[in-house]
Amino acid sequence: MFHKPEMMDALADYESARYVIFGVPFDGTSSFRSGSRWAPDAMRQASENFETYNHHFDIDYQDLLIHDAGNLEHYSTVDDTLQELSFAVEPIVADGKIPIMLGGEHSLTLPCVKACAKYSEEDIGFVVLDAHFDLREEYSGVKYSHACVSRHILNEVTDKYVTIGVRSGPREEWTYARENGIKYYTPDNVREKGIKEVLSEIIDYLGSSKIYLSLDMDALDPAYAPGLGTPEPFGLSDIEVRDVIHSLAPRSIGFDIVEIAPEYDSGQTALLGTKMLREFIAAHASDDSKNSLNKRDK
Amino acid sequence: MFHKPEMMDALADYESARYVIFGVPFDGTSSFRSGSRWAPDAMRQASENFETYNHHFDIDYQDLLIHDAGNLEHYSTVDDTLQELSFAVEPIVADGKIPIMLGGEHSLTLPCVKACAKYSEEDIGFVVLDAHFDLREEYSGVKYSHACVSRHILNEVTDKYVTIGVRSGPREEWTYARENGIKYYTPDNVREKGIKEVLSEIIDYLGSSKIYLSLDMDALDPAYAPGLGTPEPFGLSDIEVRDVIHSLAPRSIGFDIVEIAPEYDSGQTALLGTKMLREFIAAHASDDSKNSLNKRDK
Amino acid sequence: MFHKPEMMDALADYESARYVIFGVPFDGTSSFRSGSRWAPDAMRQASENFETYNHHFDIDYQDLLIHDAGNLEHYSTVDDTLQELSFAVEPIVADGKIPIMLGGEHSLTLPCVKACAKYSEEDIGFVVLDAHFDLREEYSGVKYSHACVSRHILNEVTDKYVTIGVRSGPREEWTYARENGIKYYTPDNVREKGIKEVLSEIIDYLGSSKIYLSLDMDALDPAYAPGLGTPEPFGLSDIEVRDVIHSLAPRSIGFDIVEIAPEYDSGQTALLGTKMLREFIAAHASDDSKNSLNKRDK
Amino acid sequence: MFHKPEMMDALADYESARYVIFGVPFDGTSSFRSGSRWAPDAMRQASENFETYNHHFDIDYQDLLIHDAGNLEHYSTVDDTLQELSFAVEPIVADGKIPIMLGGEHSLTLPCVKACAKYSEEDIGFVVLDAHFDLREEYSGVKYSHACVSRHILNEVTDKYVTIGVRSGPREEWTYARENGIKYYTPDNVREKGIKEVLSEIIDYLGSSKIYLSLDMDALDPAYAPGLGTPEPFGLSDIEVRDVIHSLAPRSIGFDIVEIAPEYDSGQTALLGTKMLREFIAAHASDDSKNSLNKRDK
Amino acid sequence: MFHKPEMMDALADYESARYVIFGVPFDGTSSFRSGSRWAPDAMRQASENFETYNHHFDIDYQDLLIHDAGNLEHYSTVDDTLQELSFAVEPIVADGKIPIMLGGEHSLTLPCVKACAKYSEEDIGFVVLDAHFDLREEYSGVKYSHACVSRHILNEVTDKYVTIGVRSGPREEWTYARENGIKYYTPDNVREKGIKEVLSEIIDYLGSSKIYLSLDMDALDPAYAPGLGTPEPFGLSDIEVRDVIHSLAPRSIGFDIVEIAPEYDSGQTALLGTKMLREFIAAHASDDSKNSLNKRDK
Amino acid sequence: MFHKPEMMDALADYESARYVIFGVPFDGTSSFRSGSRWAPDAMRQASENFETYNHHFDIDYQDLLIHDAGNLEHYSTVDDTLQELSFAVEPIVADGKIPIMLGGEHSLTLPCVKACAKYSEEDIGFVVLDAHFDLREEYSGVKYSHACVSRHILNEVTDKYVTIGVRSGPREEWTYARENGIKYYTPDNVREKGIKEVLSEIIDYLGSSKIYLSLDMDALDPAYAPGLGTPEPFGLSDIEVRDVIHSLAPRSIGFDIVEIAPEYDSGQTALLGTKMLREFIAAHASDDSKNSLNKRDK
Ligand SMILES: [Mn+2]
Ligand SMILES: [Mn+2]
Ligand SMILES: [Mn+2]
Ligand SMILES: [Mn+2]
Ligand SMILES: [Mn+2]
Ligand SMILES: [Mn+2]
Ligand SMILES: [Mn+2]
Ligand SMILES: [Mn+2]
Ligand SMILES: [Mn+2]
Ligand SMILES: [Mn+2]
Ligand SMILES: [Mn+2]
Ligand SMILES: [Mn+2]
Repeated sequence: MFHKPEMMDALADYESARYVIFGVPFDGTSSFRSGSRWAPDAMRQASENFETYNHHFDIDYQDLLIHDAGNLEHYSTVDDTLQELSFAVEPIVADGKIPIMLGGEHSLTLPCVKACAKYSEEDIGFVVLDAHFDLREEYSGVKYSHACVSRHILNEVTDKYVTIGVRSGPREEWTYARENGIKYYTPDNVREKGIKEVLSEIIDYLGSSKIYLSLDMDALDPAYAPGLGTPEPFGLSDIEVRDVIHSLAPRSIGFDIVEIAPEYDSGQTALLGTKMLREFIAAHASDDSKNSLNKRDK
Repeated sequence: MFHKPEMMDALADYESARYVIFGVPFDGTSSFRSGSRWAPDAMRQASENFETYNHHFDIDYQDLLIHDAGNLEHYSTVDDTLQELSFAVEPIVADGKIPIMLGGEHSLTLPCVKACAKYSEEDIGFVVLDAHFDLREEYSGVKYSHACVSRHILNEVTDKYVTIGVRSGPREEWTYARENGIKYYTPDNVREKGIKEVLSEIIDYLGSSKIYLSLDMDALDPAYAPGLGTPEPFGLSDIEVRDVIHSLAPRSIGFDIVEIAPEYDSGQTALLGTKMLREFIAAHASDDSKNSLNKRDK
Repeated sequence: MFHKPEMMDALADYESARYVIFGVPFDGTSSFRSGSRWAPDAMRQASENFETYNHHFDIDYQDLLIHDAGNLEHYSTVDDTLQELSFAVEPIVADGKIPIMLGGEHSLTLPCVKACAKYSEEDIGFVVLDAHFDLREEYSGVKYSHACVSRHILNEVTDKYVTIGVRSGPREEWTYARENGIKYYTPDNVREKGIKEVLSEIIDYLGSSKIYLSLDMDALDPAYAPGLGTPEPFGLSDIEVRDVIHSLAPRSIGFDIVEIAPEYDSGQTALLGTKMLREFIAAHASDDSKNSLNKRDK
Repeated sequence: MFHKPEMMDALADYESARYVIFGVPFDGTSSFRSGSRWAPDAMRQASENFETYNHHFDIDYQDLLIHDAGNLEHYSTVDDTLQELSFAVEPIVADGKIPIMLGGEHSLTLPCVKACAKYSEEDIGFVVLDAHFDLREEYSGVKYSHACVSRHILNEVTDKYVTIGVRSGPREEWTYARENGIKYYTPDNVREKGIKEVLSEIIDYLGSSKIYLSLDMDALDPAYAPGLGTPEPFGLSDIEVRDVIHSLAPRSIGFDIVEIAPEYDSGQTALLGTKMLREFIAAHASDDSKNSLNKRDK
Repeated sequence: MFHKPEMMDALADYESARYVIFGVPFDGTSSFRSGSRWAPDAMRQASENFETYNHHFDIDYQDLLIHDAGNLEHYSTVDDTLQELSFAVEPIVADGKIPIMLGGEHSLTLPCVKACAKYSEEDIGFVVLDAHFDLREEYSGVKYSHACVSRHILNEVTDKYVTIGVRSGPREEWTYARENGIKYYTPDNVREKGIKEVLSEIIDYLGSSKIYLSLDMDALDPAYAPGLGTPEPFGLSDIEVRDVIHSLAPRSIGFDIVEIAPEYDSGQTALLGTKMLREFIAAHASDDSKNSLNKRDK
Repeated sequence: MFHKPEMMDALADYESARYVIFGVPFDGTSSFRSGSRWAPDAMRQASENFETYNHHFDIDYQDLLIHDAGNLEHYSTVDDTLQELSFAVEPIVADGKIPIMLGGEHSLTLPCVKACAKYSEEDIGFVVLDAHFDLREEYSGVKYSHACVSRHILNEVTDKYVTIGVRSGPREEWTYARENGIKYYTPDNVREKGIKEVLSEIIDYLGSSKIYLSLDMDALDPAYAPGLGTPEPFGLSDIEVRDVIHSLAPRSIGFDIVEIAPEYDSGQTALLGTKMLREFIAAHASDDSKNSLNKRDK
């Protein structure tokens, strides 16, 4: 009769869950506009807007095993936050569940990727949608800044790495990307080739690898997502991002949506992020369901 | 010297008017975000932004016979509101005028459609732009909820029914639509076929029928229309909606724009809705004027 | 490590709880600006702003037995909502706990008062802070409108009734109040007599009665509480309202805070409402604790 | 059944009206934040919040003869606007009605005062509530700037002049005020003496004169009125301004409320301004009614 | 260690500068929503969001010679403002620098174009991106209104004139444009032909002429740029405008961005405008740099 | 003709300046709402609202020697920021000038106080207006959190310490304050004693000591200052804070205003903070001027 303010349709308890959603309200290294600390709760509120049914995949979310674990406790420093997040996310992966993180800022992706890699039998890939390379070694003295997350993943986890939507970075990052043969697609590349062709190239590149998929919402054009920490014009369309998710969710063993700053719009970006989250789950479950793994008994 | 805060260019009195605009500031059944009660006045204010001339149709709105009747008095319940709206709109139709309703929520469309059907010599069709099917029999115990308006029109008025932009609904609605052979176009359908082809199919389907045209603004993508009660990503573009209006206005005997929630943006959605209203009138009058019906003597 | 988005310091489970907080996100009869549906979650978010310690009462909220039950499920009509709320609140009272409702609109107070009266051994009084009398029998055809709540309580529950802060109502309500000897204090009365004297008169009037205390936030001046459904200038100060709560909480067996509309400010009113909630609990627990009822084992 | 978006309770036609409300949406000389052009419509919308009954004066506004004439047409320059306003307001005064202007900016007061003076048999006084002296001869080359209105009234209309709430101005204005024996009260003066004593002095000073009363909303402290063009801290309280209106309305033959900039809050200032307008009418009508002048036949 | 709140990467002093940015916070003739007075500072703040490197042109802005001169002092009338702006911009052009104006409203373009024309050895062309023709001789009595700027440029400076994005104007302007053989492209024209073809036609038309390039941000669709004085639906996309700038910047001897009204969004339009400014400088400098004119010594 | 976006009336260069204003846009340890990073520029913008003349002190700010040094460069961590701020502020104090810092968050006060103490011949006192004690040794692992600034000043600089407006803190802080004989005044204390009496006690306590004065804007009630990081109801009034500044500015050798979060209102708090800054300068200069130290030659 009463219900907690959780993500809508997250009806499963932890034990039975296939998907474990959790928020991390941390934005301490955000360089321009902060406020992604408010995104997890904004996305929970936004979720009430949507129908429980996804027509594209003919899936009702209430039939799936989704759990909302709540938010990570607040820690003041990025180092403490990453460590505690690491402690929190590892058991989820160890228990064979799909972790879905709601940022907070992009730096939070690192412990999630590492947890997924640690418990994966094979090497995993990392695919990120982002306006920014996030390839710095450090950003004004902070190693684990949100502007460095991809670099640490390359250094510490995997070099099977693809970034889509990138259009901003210092010359050093573009040089680094080129010299290290990093696979990236700018929005202009996507507009020229079409997202289908881009996805086909990426799938060739990934082979049979499982991946961790990370959606920095600033990959999207600010027309679709104005509520961001570092909005960058000339971005991807909503449909392009949706196509990436539809295509890559089935092979994903972890997912996150980061960098929404809800105080800079009236719900638009949190609504779109939440929709993307739901597309991810439906696309993943649809594939899973061919192996009948994740149905909820009603 | 003084002028009332009316829709700009609504210079005709009721008697001489061909188009009668009126607002219904009611949003009592809105399920997610309410506030469409403020839309009629927001659209009047927005109208001051626009030039009196429409280049596409070579029409000056000040030459047309447009009347702004004001807003329906406030009633607290949806049942009272629909009944009073029915009393208010019927005389407009009976007097041979085109009723143009500014919602308020989508439930308000029903009495307008019924009034148009009642005074039409032939059966009329119903074309609606909407992200949602609105095909429920009732929504959490409320028969005349904004989530049910299309169902009641199908049940009570006409089954010559087309919906464009639909992308959200429970499984039951999609099943109902399929099983009842309901003609619908998702935004993905529109993107694949192109709006011209879609319109060509619709026109074939409608034959020579007159229609009532209803624009639930959430048919549009939230990038164009963020100020909505239930914003749904992956929607129609502004140009696609404009093309529908240009194409179908000439055969329309009633029109409405509903579900704008002005408190969720800074005027963007009310401005676009008002522009769509003006495109409707110009497209309709342009056709009419071939039969020289609706010119204003200056 | 993860925590649900609950009211801060609500650390007790239901069974051990002395105070049971719950939200009712319903604003369906709101006549001017709606949006109190968003207040319970806004107050939970606001609670993170505050220290766990209340110096005035030398109480740490984390030592108290507070439970946050979440929000009542959504129902569309006021009648359904009041009935379900009645089903939900009665067990809380029956279990000997103090129900604390976060509205939502003022109509929601009625089932809470009735539940408290039902399980009270003696007749209870009702004290309400409100800019409005809420004494109508019905409001534009709706019996259980937020504009009628006090009348129904007078009719159905108790005539030991006091209202503080009242300054708005049709002539009929002022006449009714006068003719029925209703005890009311306008803000001008409070400014003239001083809140201490007013409270002294109220305490005389109430005798030893237990009461239900209801805080319609529009009792406060809009300078303190701009985010309201029906803001009314010339209201009570924050300190005056705090003094009422400090004085009357110890004898209260139920409490609510209603009519906050968070979309009309940037958190100011939800923050103040949440502070008032915390003052209520501290004042009540401080009195209780003299009888050592409600300490939490740590 | 339909009603125009007019000021609530403005039920009289022009001919029968005692009070003629009109808006002037002009803010062209506003030096810091503009936007008072949106205030008249914002105040009309705000009026729907209030009850039709004023308890203090035992008056129901629907019994009074109030007419809302709408807004003055838009002109681009202050000179054109003042001239057209002059043409518009003079007939109202000539017809023996009380003009009530909703600004727009303070410069608009001048033609209203002049019209009142022109048709008054005796010399009139001018009382203004304002944070600013508005005593400049011109402001950066613009004679009829909102920063000069009081100077022009002193020069062209009357030197029976009182300003209340003043706290800001260049040294020249303070010197001018002192050297010309201008009667002014700062908010600190009001706090020290009390508004009752201040009003007593003002009434002595005015003798039996009729006055024009002008409320620049920035007289109020920004805590009460944040939505202003030039907000000035340390201002008057809501109650102090209300007391001035209650006291001086009965002798007023014209009134205005200016300088509300609705885009800088969420309705708070327009609501308070509208309340002050209603207090003015009730206070004036209450006095009038002793001579039974202005009752509406129902 | 301290730095002034200037446009980011504007590291050069005036003497060494190739690009001189300056703001003109004036919006006195704005007809619908004002507020472009706040745009220059909003764009400076937005600039901190961006990387110093432009990948498309392989240029780091910190290597260029950019100076931010600050804002023109405030004048109250458009006539004074245009005259003072003329005095301010002429020396910049005389010194062989590229003036880049941040409006403020579109009327401010006139003195900038005239200054560029005065010091140019050959006749210059004028290319403007705008939703509006701005071809009126005067607008409600104001000659130098923002609605007239293009007409004055045609009359006083050059008839080598192209406007892109136009979609709004009274019949007279469309007639004038047609009868005077004015080269214009509506957004529908651009969508039909493609921006590449449009640019090819424009380049043919311009021949080898140098131009002044003016970006009225309302050329863009409100989905990309909601924070505008007079937003007009059905506009250009961000990519189309970027393509125009990339193509025409190399031949530009002056540039401006006008009509951003920052109070009507949360930074989106100022961010996009600032990005367009940076694209202009990079495109211009990239061309220049082939003649090694504008590198900054570090 | 052009002027930089500096604090209004800051007309002096550094060398001649008596008052050196600088901003520090850092909010990295803010625990609830961040955003004070935007306050320095918001205050510069707000300053344009005010007249150059202060009547209370008969001082024109343009006659004073005020310099605006701009903002401290951005550093990511609080440790780096405090160190660089220390490097930046020490020369200002060493040069005999009055440093006036615009935060940013309260942690930034520490290096300013230390710089003032270092160059003072005698021991200095510290007076802070704050809703919070800020007496923690560390806050969730961060030593130099904004919640600890007073403790570090007590530990490292002076125990001649007074805090006014305090009303929030964990039990440990209240205990620490009591056990260490810390001189504090809650708003309730101020309301009971009156601010004059409180100031008299403080002046007795300080003796002839010079002080550093710090204004955490959350000392004020949120009715006056809603745009804060951690708003706390039941605070000081605007007049009480002004009286403290008037009284203590003359003995101050450094001053700051911190914790304004401009994104949570529409300018109200930045306007009030800027006004308080101007009151500080006028009060200080007025005293100084008796010794004719700080007049600007014009
Ligand atoms: Mn990123
Ligand atoms: Mn990014
Ligand atoms: Mn609908
Ligand atoms: Mn819909
Ligand atoms: Mn109530
Ligand atoms: Mn109320
Ligand atoms: Mn004034
Ligand atoms: Mn003023
Ligand atoms: Mn233009
Ligand atoms: Mn334009
Ligand atoms: Mn502090
Ligand atoms: Mn504080």
